[in-house]
Amino acid sequence: MGAGRVPVTVGLKDRFFATRKLTVDLTTPLSDADATVQSMPDTSPAKWHLAHVTWFLESFVLRDHVPQYRAFDDNFAYLFNSYYEAEGARHTRAARGLITRPSLGQILDYRTHVESAIEAHWNNLPETALQLVELGIQHEQQHQELLLTDILHLFAQNPIYPAYWPTPIIGDAAIFREDGAGWREGPWGLQSIGFEGAGFAFDCEGPRHEVYLQPFALCERTVSNAEWMYFMNDGGYSDPHLWLSDGWSWVQREGIAAPLYWQQNSDGQWLSFGLDGLRAVDLSAPVTHISLYEADAYASWANARLPTEAEWEVAAASFPSGEGHLLDRPGPVRPKVAGCSNPFGNVWQWTGSAYRPYPGFRAAAGAVGEYNGKFMSGQFVLRGGSCATPRGHVRASYRNFFYPHQRWQFTGLRLAKNV
Amino acid sequence: MGAGRVPVTVGLKDRFFATRKLTVDLTTPLSDADATVQSMPDTSPAKWHLAHVTWFLESFVLRDHVPQYRAFDDNFAYLFNSYYEAEGARHTRAARGLITRPSLGQILDYRTHVESAIEAHWNNLPETALQLVELGIQHEQQHQELLLTDILHLFAQNPIYPAYWPTPIIGDAAIFREDGAGWREGPWGLQSIGFEGAGFAFDCEGPRHEVYLQPFALCERTVSNAEWMYFMNDGGYSDPHLWLSDGWSWVQREGIAAPLYWQQNSDGQWLSFGLDGLRAVDLSAPVTHISLYEADAYASWANARLPTEAEWEVAAASFPSGEGHLLDRPGPVRPKVAGCSNPFGNVWQWTGSAYRPYPGFRAAAGAVGEYNGKFMSGQFVLRGGSCATPRGHVRASYRNFFYPHQRWQFTGLRLAKNV
Amino acid sequence: MGAGRVPVTVGLKDRFFATRKLTVDLTTPLSDADATVQSMPDTSPAKWHLAHVTWFLESFVLRDHVPQYRAFDDNFAYLFNSYYEAEGARHTRAARGLITRPSLGQILDYRTHVESAIEAHWNNLPETALQLVELGIQHEQQHQELLLTDILHLFAQNPIYPAYWPTPIIGDAAIFREDGAGWREGPWGLQSIGFEGAGFAFDCEGPRHEVYLQPFALCERTVSNAEWMYFMNDGGYSDPHLWLSDGWSWVQREGIAAPLYWQQNSDGQWLSFGLDGLRAVDLSAPVTHISLYEADAYASWANARLPTEAEWEVAAASFPSGEGHLLDRPGPVRPKVAGCSNPFGNVWQWTGSAYRPYPGFRAAAGAVGEYNGKFMSGQFVLRGGSCATPRGHVRASYRNFFYPHQRWQFTGLRLAKNV
Amino acid sequence: MGAGRVPVTVGLKDRFFATRKLTVDLTTPLSDADATVQSMPDTSPAKWHLAHVTWFLESFVLRDHVPQYRAFDDNFAYLFNSYYEAEGARHTRAARGLITRPSLGQILDYRTHVESAIEAHWNNLPETALQLVELGIQHEQQHQELLLTDILHLFAQNPIYPAYWPTPIIGDAAIFREDGAGWREGPWGLQSIGFEGAGFAFDCEGPRHEVYLQPFALCERTVSNAEWMYFMNDGGYSDPHLWLSDGWSWVQREGIAAPLYWQQNSDGQWLSFGLDGLRAVDLSAPVTHISLYEADAYASWANARLPTEAEWEVAAASFPSGEGHLLDRPGPVRPKVAGCSNPFGNVWQWTGSAYRPYPGFRAAAGAVGEYNGKFMSGQFVLRGGSCATPRGHVRASYRNFFYPHQRWQFTGLRLAKNV
Repeated sequence: MGAGRVPVTVGLKDRFFATRKLTVDLTTPLSDADATVQSMPDTSPAKWHLAHVTWFLESFVLRDHVPQYRAFDDNFAYLFNSYYEAEGARHTRAARGLITRPSLGQILDYRTHVESAIEAHWNNLPETALQLVELGIQHEQQHQELLLTDILHLFAQNPIYPAYWPTPIIGDAAIFREDGAGWREGPWGLQSIGFEGAGFAFDCEGPRHEVYLQPFALCERTVSNAEWMYFMNDGGYSDPHLWLSDGWSWVQREGIAAPLYWQQNSDGQWLSFGLDGLRAVDLSAPVTHISLYEADAYASWANARLPTEAEWEVAAASFPSGEGHLLDRPGPVRPKVAGCSNPFGNVWQWTGSAYRPYPGFRAAAGAVGEYNGKFMSGQFVLRGGSCATPRGHVRASYRNFFYPHQRWQFTGLRLAKNV
Repeated sequence: MGAGRVPVTVGLKDRFFATRKLTVDLTTPLSDADATVQSMPDTSPAKWHLAHVTWFLESFVLRDHVPQYRAFDDNFAYLFNSYYEAEGARHTRAARGLITRPSLGQILDYRTHVESAIEAHWNNLPETALQLVELGIQHEQQHQELLLTDILHLFAQNPIYPAYWPTPIIGDAAIFREDGAGWREGPWGLQSIGFEGAGFAFDCEGPRHEVYLQPFALCERTVSNAEWMYFMNDGGYSDPHLWLSDGWSWVQREGIAAPLYWQQNSDGQWLSFGLDGLRAVDLSAPVTHISLYEADAYASWANARLPTEAEWEVAAASFPSGEGHLLDRPGPVRPKVAGCSNPFGNVWQWTGSAYRPYPGFRAAAGAVGEYNGKFMSGQFVLRGGSCATPRGHVRASYRNFFYPHQRWQFTGLRLAKNV
Repeated sequence: MGAGRVPVTVGLKDRFFATRKLTVDLTTPLSDADATVQSMPDTSPAKWHLAHVTWFLESFVLRDHVPQYRAFDDNFAYLFNSYYEAEGARHTRAARGLITRPSLGQILDYRTHVESAIEAHWNNLPETALQLVELGIQHEQQHQELLLTDILHLFAQNPIYPAYWPTPIIGDAAIFREDGAGWREGPWGLQSIGFEGAGFAFDCEGPRHEVYLQPFALCERTVSNAEWMYFMNDGGYSDPHLWLSDGWSWVQREGIAAPLYWQQNSDGQWLSFGLDGLRAVDLSAPVTHISLYEADAYASWANARLPTEAEWEVAAASFPSGEGHLLDRPGPVRPKVAGCSNPFGNVWQWTGSAYRPYPGFRAAAGAVGEYNGKFMSGQFVLRGGSCATPRGHVRASYRNFFYPHQRWQFTGLRLAKNV
Repeated sequence: MGAGRVPVTVGLKDRFFATRKLTVDLTTPLSDADATVQSMPDTSPAKWHLAHVTWFLESFVLRDHVPQYRAFDDNFAYLFNSYYEAEGARHTRAARGLITRPSLGQILDYRTHVESAIEAHWNNLPETALQLVELGIQHEQQHQELLLTDILHLFAQNPIYPAYWPTPIIGDAAIFREDGAGWREGPWGLQSIGFEGAGFAFDCEGPRHEVYLQPFALCERTVSNAEWMYFMNDGGYSDPHLWLSDGWSWVQREGIAAPLYWQQNSDGQWLSFGLDGLRAVDLSAPVTHISLYEADAYASWANARLPTEAEWEVAAASFPSGEGHLLDRPGPVRPKVAGCSNPFGNVWQWTGSAYRPYPGFRAAAGAVGEYNGKFMSGQFVLRGGSCATPRGHVRASYRNFFYPHQRWQFTGLRLAKNV
């Protein structure tokens, strides 16, 4: 984020406290133990998320701008820094799940303490501090999504499959209308992508710049579970010609044969585990929890390809980013029937673009400059947001990024082709 | 355990409920999170210990002997079986720490449920069931010790070093009287070892059999922290000639330079972490949390050797096993000044004997036959019990066993020599 | 390679046999043992290279186009297929170094056998077969370079540091003229890149397509060893802010503190190992054997960046690709003083571009279609060729690719900046 | 080896040169590549064996006792020291196979050089040097066996299965006479084991000492391949109750389902690979290439057990140790029909005894003191010698030792039981 580019918007204070409240609301079903355990090195404990976003605010807003501020606990900087080298030593990422103390209750107290201090000093916060509050909101929204996907991963390791939000099964979920999704041509030739203008954006979304695109078309909707089953039944996971070489190694080494969280019951029926528990795969919903490798293999099988991030962005630019199936409140989070042509929400869409800097990119100065730039190797860009992305967080220029084997986020795909 | 050899003793019922109560008393300081996390594959969560010993009773006493008994929860057999192949599939050992649900509270309810059922049916339990209650007591006592050592290991991973039982520092702990420990010759020639007679013993403690011993002497007390520091200062951890070859590989691969839980503060002072927190190493206490490799290297450095288990047993046979520094109640558990010549309690003593079957050993029939025999490769015998071993649990013939690199138990050493 | 696009050029036969001869000439110093051992999973034994390129010709030219052809040995398809899934099962890559038999002598016989068969049938080979001969030449040239870099890696593991081509030390090598390399602006705006026209190119080099470039400049020469030492002395390997996050993890995990094959003698002088043995680092030569991570960190330190592959290509398009410091004959292979502004030869230059398909890319049909496309994840593009690249093999559109941590090729960097 | 206990025997010089000659004769079929490659960390290249035993003589006989002796090559101490910490730094064990130079020819020159120097100085060698020549003979005999088993392991990795000594198949090998092997009771009560008296023995074979044995019987012959197939067909490899816990983990982790070097052809016939190539399993021959875990599981299945090393030794004491099926000359080495009741030769026999020091054991002083003692953890004792053990090398008190999962030696088993 170029801190200088962040405008202090009207309604910042309300949005700040609403964001803070949503985070805590999302954790209502959590026990102290649920909030403490880490299920793999890629994920973090819920307690860590709750504390880390608070540490971010405490450090960059309060410590740096409120002279008389006293840290809630001097140990927390060590425990809850994520990866900011400029902020000093920190606890090993893979050992975050061993911190049984402080408890969930103490972390909630920490949150209240920091919020109260920000409220108390709000009127005296300088412009740069308010810009960091805006960054803190955006940052916390990202962790809201991670908190949900990390809890989902944790609960999926439990052989009794607890539901985070138990809900009745929706009656007609398995009815699938194979409605031959159409193709929509996008604008081509010399185009511009990247963020520019008013409002918040991360540093990696800019600068806006020209790109030259060949004629292309994107599918009107993302790939569905029904279509994914055709791929599986057609031997998609066992034909090396469909796969990137690294992907094929991954499939064989890990024994991958279905999306993450899918399992077959003794009748051969496919079930998927979600935040509402274990239930039959909904054929009409978009496929999710797939890796870039799987998305790419599917596209090869379908004689299509993944879109580039530039194609996705110019095609999405004409849609309102706030209208998709995004996160508004606590409650069962699952992708919905893939019917709408709005590209935002439901599932993140893998693109074929490696996550690299745009021409002219410069990381922000200071610790917050470590936010994006240093991750620009080995990862692929995802676009669009998911059902676990807080509404208001994504936009057409938003660049999410993960390694090609990762799939514990709500990741899916939209096909592209040359025309 | 040869089930047929277990006598049903007077006072069994009282001992049973006292043992069950002590387990729960030991867990009073635990939060739900503390009880859930697993800090390494060798250890288990406290919640798992609490449930596993209960599953043992539920399966072998209630399910097998009380026809109308209904399991508390059908999932628990899968979750809380440890290693009994005869009892079917079970949860992966290394993933025990991912089970955030059931909660600690639910596990405590499970305990109450099983205890009530045993109480209700006590008068109708057949002899074989009562023998399994006796085995269940012994089994639970072993897990009481593991529960404490596993919590100690977990808390030691937390950079804020929480104390399980915070206590004031005892004033004179650092005063060390180097009182030239004497040697005591043991009985040699044709001797007998192994359990025989009334009372409970595990199957691996027998049969009693003849062994021929060369003349030997054992040191009157175990090695102290002060002596261990001489070893460290004399380069004990960096001289390969003192070490077993596998031990030297371990030292180099793991970067071992002190007992487990020791650290130096910025002044160079050695601290050790215990269930009462982080405090200065007590020079007069016995060294503990050392591996067999370290014990063997120390003995080489001291121009001595480790005792064999037969030497240890014949020397210990004349001492009362119930009088050492053993576990009676909740509260700070640490080895005490090594002054007493009683060989029981304080720290487990590594012997130079591999854990192998005695002549004529036969494992018990059925699932409980998996208790000991199948572990008889690669491990060494320890004798004597520790400050975390419940009083009444050990005896002269008791054989504990661990791999030579393991050191999260309260393990120490006593020197031996030929005379 | 789009097989249909390969023209059968005048002089093909002469080039074919000259290429085959150069390969064998390069292996003159090899013993049977040298040719057999594999020093890491990324490399292959020299014997394997010699056989694999021959298997490629035997399969795709002789077996597929000469009906009466009989394979030299039926085992060789299994032993010497590299990664062509369409060609069936093959020997595990990491176990290539365990094949002590067939011997080097037998492999040289195999080469002669296949060459004789091609010569005998040359006049009857159809157009498609001749296109595959052309591909076979290009393929063998790639393996000539790998053969040299793999031998270098193997010999570097030998504590006696044998020289592949022992040579006297050149007297003035250590004289470094710091001649303030200039910047040269490249053509920007709407440009075209990718191969088009007569002559051979690999499939991944096309199709030619438009790209839009921002104004930029490239350094006139690649970074020298002298400059690299400034970076090292300035703490370049120990400042996390300079590094990509994955790069910093790699530096710490592997203990990286200098280019591959560098070591310090007891006087602190830096030596580097090459095909001519171990000698003092030549300050005026270009730095080589660095990873993308190191190249990127250096560029950050120098307040510059790596060029994109498009920038590199449009800037290089005006230079003759055959005039650089490339491989002509056996003999000591080392990068030379970095004086010339011709971008070809000496060291491969890491670009900041991920190796991904160009718009409209389609892999060739059949087994040869596995040549390039399936490797398009996780790797970065290198451009320009090195001192170990056979003359005539590279061109402006040529895309080499390796993972960002790999550095056993002759890899270096050229700085770029925005203007 | 207690150096002071080694007598200088009549005929030492002849035995020395005969041993040296046999080593080279065994390597006649080796190419330079065969002699260089290392197929797993446990094994060593043949070239390394040839050089290491020579380095042992050069260091401990020539360097230490012939003042004017000049080392053949100063690098060799670093390259060919095995594990003697007292002799300084050495090449990493797992990287021995990367040393393509010096060549096999140079190593053979090294052997000649050292032999000539010993011959030239023989008459002036002091008593201690001659004792070290005796140790050198014994040491070289051990490496003759390892050289053969290591070559066997290497060739078994080659998918074309080269025969080291190709031979015609013996016609009647598959005829198996199931001749109900008898049991033979051994001497029990107070017995003595361990070496004492004239002749050479390793330090770990002593001191001779009393042991008390319960009544026991040993099977007259070792277990045959036919019997092993009954075990396999009865599900021996898939029943966890038969296995030690560590053994069961090993079976599952490694996917073990047959002895090492066994494979099934497409007709389901079992073949085994040996130094004479791949051929049908000889049902009447003793099973070999099995681990301690497999031997122990077989014994459980057969309602028997492994003998202790003391039982084996007292039972073997009455047999001539030089009359078994042992190694005399180069040529196909395979266990023969298990008909003879002589316990020596054919296959090493796993015992149930951990390899630990005898009472009163003291390692020899100096570097040769590292020969045995430091390996006394985690390993099991094998007794009797094999078809690859040079005749004259073993005796009743001889203790061989390997880890319980290792099986690339000619290892088998003999059953024992209580009577």
